[in-house]
Amino acid sequence: MNLIENISRNIYPLEKQYMEQAQQRLDRLIKPTGSLGKMEGICVQLAGIYGRKYFDTSKKIIIAFACDHGVYEEGVAPDPQNITILQFKNFPHKINGVGTISKFVGADVLPVDVGINCDEKLEGVLDYKIRKGTSNMAKGPAMTRKEAKRCIEIGIEMAEKCIQDDYTLIGIGEMGIANTTPSTAIISAIGGFDPSEITGMGAGLKKELIQHKANVIRKAIELNKPNSKDSIDVLSKVGGFEIGAMAGVILGCAANRTPVVLDGFISYAAALLAYNINPRVKDYMIASHLSAEPGTEKVLGMIGLEPFLAMGMRLGEGSGAALSFNIIEASNYVYKNMATFDEIDMGR
Amino acid sequence: MNLIENISRNIYPLEKQYMEQAQQRLDRLIKPTGSLGKMEGICVQLAGIYGRKYFDTSKKIIIAFACDHGVYEEGVAPDPQNITILQFKNFPHKINGVGTISKFVGADVLPVDVGINCDEKLEGVLDYKIRKGTSNMAKGPAMTRKEAKRCIEIGIEMAEKCIQDDYTLIGIGEMGIANTTPSTAIISAIGGFDPSEITGMGAGLKKELIQHKANVIRKAIELNKPNSKDSIDVLSKVGGFEIGAMAGVILGCAANRTPVVLDGFISYAAALLAYNINPRVKDYMIASHLSAEPGTEKVLGMIGLEPFLAMGMRLGEGSGAALSFNIIEASNYVYKNMATFDEIDMGR
Repeated sequence: MNLIENISRNIYPLEKQYMEQAQQRLDRLIKPTGSLGKMEGICVQLAGIYGRKYFDTSKKIIIAFACDHGVYEEGVAPDPQNITILQFKNFPHKINGVGTISKFVGADVLPVDVGINCDEKLEGVLDYKIRKGTSNMAKGPAMTRKEAKRCIEIGIEMAEKCIQDDYTLIGIGEMGIANTTPSTAIISAIGGFDPSEITGMGAGLKKELIQHKANVIRKAIELNKPNSKDSIDVLSKVGGFEIGAMAGVILGCAANRTPVVLDGFISYAAALLAYNINPRVKDYMIASHLSAEPGTEKVLGMIGLEPFLAMGMRLGEGSGAALSFNIIEASNYVYKNMATFDEIDMGR
Repeated sequence: MNLIENISRNIYPLEKQYMEQAQQRLDRLIKPTGSLGKMEGICVQLAGIYGRKYFDTSKKIIIAFACDHGVYEEGVAPDPQNITILQFKNFPHKINGVGTISKFVGADVLPVDVGINCDEKLEGVLDYKIRKGTSNMAKGPAMTRKEAKRCIEIGIEMAEKCIQDDYTLIGIGEMGIANTTPSTAIISAIGGFDPSEITGMGAGLKKELIQHKANVIRKAIELNKPNSKDSIDVLSKVGGFEIGAMAGVILGCAANRTPVVLDGFISYAAALLAYNINPRVKDYMIASHLSAEPGTEKVLGMIGLEPFLAMGMRLGEGSGAALSFNIIEASNYVYKNMATFDEIDMGR
């Protein structure tokens, strides 16, 4: 049995008894029942994930994967491809979007190269390069089935490494010029959507090129015929290494009873891949922010996730996940520290 | 000229030059243009409010007003009326919802009694009691025109006191059993909505009583005939002391170039009163979270505000405003600390 199947078999339902204990405490806090909304939902979910009534969410990390995409050559992204490497070099220094937000919220960032188009070893970046970018999915499969499995496995390994290092809250992020294209392709393939329904501007594609991008995605799907029931097949035909690795982190977190915080649109595609392997991962995921991409509601609806930040962000990198760490920690702080009706006489 | 007119005449448009400077810096950060969404919008707005390119948002406070409501006797709220005083006693100790969140985000709380139904002086609470609760608006005006002006003036005074004490970010909150009823009445009266379109459960009213609550509101409006063009008339006839005081804080902040962060539904009613006095206040307001009350989108749409937190919260107290302080500060931190294309060679 391979690592992916093995991990998937080790994903169990949340522990109901601790969820009930958490809800009982929340219902005793000095407030109307349920009035803290999703702050309460987050605490109940975390209790079920960790399998304990009280838990610590202070040691936090964003695992960010970078790679390049063969489909870039179809003209689906506004930026030069080497922005992937140029920007990823900034990740270890925390001077970019996700890095600055992580500094503000007290989170670490683990940058992992899974396939940047370069020979250079990047300082402060883990080297798990599969190869120097995927193949162009508009001309054939983006990667082999073996490579698809490997990038998921890398994600699982990274999640397990972080959990070993005592991180209790893990977010996922990415860097990869053109990667809304494979993300939209994955969501179209699994969800059965026509690409034109859900294709957006990504990092800032001009309006008149969005239909072209949708056509490229449609062509890639028609050419490669991904099997929507088989996430590894979808990933290999129209995916990206970083998307597979993010799906791996989700599986790895779920199998190790650790919450995993999604970021934006690319992470939704990864979430859908993982969900398609084992729907139980859903209970371990926390959706942070509502991406500005048009396919957002459709893909989140398929999984049944509801983000709580509506920032109109479309940066990626893990920036939305990092920003949401604050809200998750605030929820836990309130859950632990707010007074209860047992401590304060309020006639209940 | 009275204080309210005087303050209203001192509300000026935002300072465009600093907004442009802020946008220029945001456009030089190492990210796709506009990709930080509302984080960028917040920084541009703050630059325009403070009238400077860089600003400090670390000294933060929630001004929370409490009072009781004569309309309570119509059976529009699920809780005993004395929850107002019992809960407000917890505000100075920061053990309630807004207090715990404020501790987490490093904010202060200023509790002000503007009309709780009690003779007791509350420790740690400023005493600006107008009287022991409003009159029942289903039987006549909630308060006199003089009282309505006075509660707005109290809000202005509190805002100016906090600004004198060097607070640079002010949020508004409240405590007052039954206060979604006058809030809904204010929004219905000014917006011309039928109360049944926008009346909700408040702190947890049973479904079968929501129509009754809407009927009470409709009756109060029909009986008192508030003049929708005159906020003071609306406030006096179907409002509440805390709502008027919150509107005063908004006016006071706007006249003193200080951002004011809204909370939930009650604060939207206050915002609408202030907006109706001088629409320029809009530029000084930051909408934090989307309240769970059904009239939310309508009232925010009238003012043109878009919250960025979608927590499904319906606690009030200023809890959503306090939670949003973190996002506002994170936005400012990123704006100041993220690297620019001038510092990093990324080919632009």
